[in-house]
Amino acid sequence: MRELPLSEVYQLLEPGPVVLMTTAHKGRDNVMTLSWHMMVEFTPPLVACVVSSANFSFAALRATGECVIAIPALALAPKVVEIGNCSGRTIEKFRKFGLTAASARRVAAPLVNECFANLECKVVDTRLVNKYNLFILEVLQAWTDPAQQDVKTIHHRGYGAFVVDGETIKLKSKKP
Amino acid sequence: MRELPLSEVYQLLEPGPVVLMTTAHKGRDNVMTLSWHMMVEFTPPLVACVVSSANFSFAALRATGECVIAIPALALAPKVVEIGNCSGRTIEKFRKFGLTAASARRVAAPLVNECFANLECKVVDTRLVNKYNLFILEVLQAWTDPAQQDVKTIHHRGYGAFVVDGETIKLKSKKP
Repeated sequence: MRELPLSEVYQLLEPGPVVLMTTAHKGRDNVMTLSWHMMVEFTPPLVACVVSSANFSFAALRATGECVIAIPALALAPKVVEIGNCSGRTIEKFRKFGLTAASARRVAAPLVNECFANLECKVVDTRLVNKYNLFILEVLQAWTDPAQQDVKTIHHRGYGAFVVDGETIKLKSKKP
Repeated sequence: MRELPLSEVYQLLEPGPVVLMTTAHKGRDNVMTLSWHMMVEFTPPLVACVVSSANFSFAALRATGECVIAIPALALAPKVVEIGNCSGRTIEKFRKFGLTAASARRVAAPLVNECFANLECKVVDTRLVNKYNLFILEVLQAWTDPAQQDVKTIHHRGYGAFVVDGETIKLKSKKP
């Protein structure tokens, strides 16, 4: 994994890909599927996300204040859906889905080796957690996999329908 | 425009398309480009968005508590970028870009006729506005254009690079 400048993190999340979120709590790694996230600030990168309190990961995220957002490419799509269809309460998902947990630098939550990008995050604002399950995260460290270039991501349309990245177009813009 | 059930709104926003946001304030309609948004709740649909306080629309959104999120298809991409590159402070954008403002049902902000979907919204939580420019919106009314079916949307990667929707795949999922 290669370090990605924090100022470039928004370019990964702004397009709205389905991501994985890992946590580590009480000696257990877990991973969930997440589609409700957005950028909040460029630098340091802040990310908002909604993690349902019904999810096993919710308690881990709340208690530890740490997570990793891992971005899977298209090839992982079947696993991403299965990860979203089961709970860490009863399943060791890293083992079941053959994912490799790697040590992060700044947080206890693991990186996912098979993902092309991994973002180490800490929770920085919980004011909207009680009402909306909405966390504000700061990205502390970002990694990309140099072996996975020009990958396609997936975007969820509901009930297992995903739109896959198509062509990239370039228009004249002054904005980041 | 045809009414869209509110329970289906997330299917439009969850994939992360670039959208337009309209406001009406002090007798002036305005429209901006927005890419930092996410779903927060299914029904009633809640949406979080970040509107920079540097944007002319910020004051309008804050003062009126109303907006319309309009979703443009690929054909509008060049206009969407230009809309994001100029300010309503000095430009009447609806006129300049040949967009048609239509009356909404529940809010004063206008619908954009050329967009394939329009979501009438009111601000329901401003607790994170001062610190992050983050608004929580409730979608009150949703419309889609039956003449625009199976459209492709655009997703921003930074500096005018947009990934266009490609193929849609269907995987077995129990989740909405």
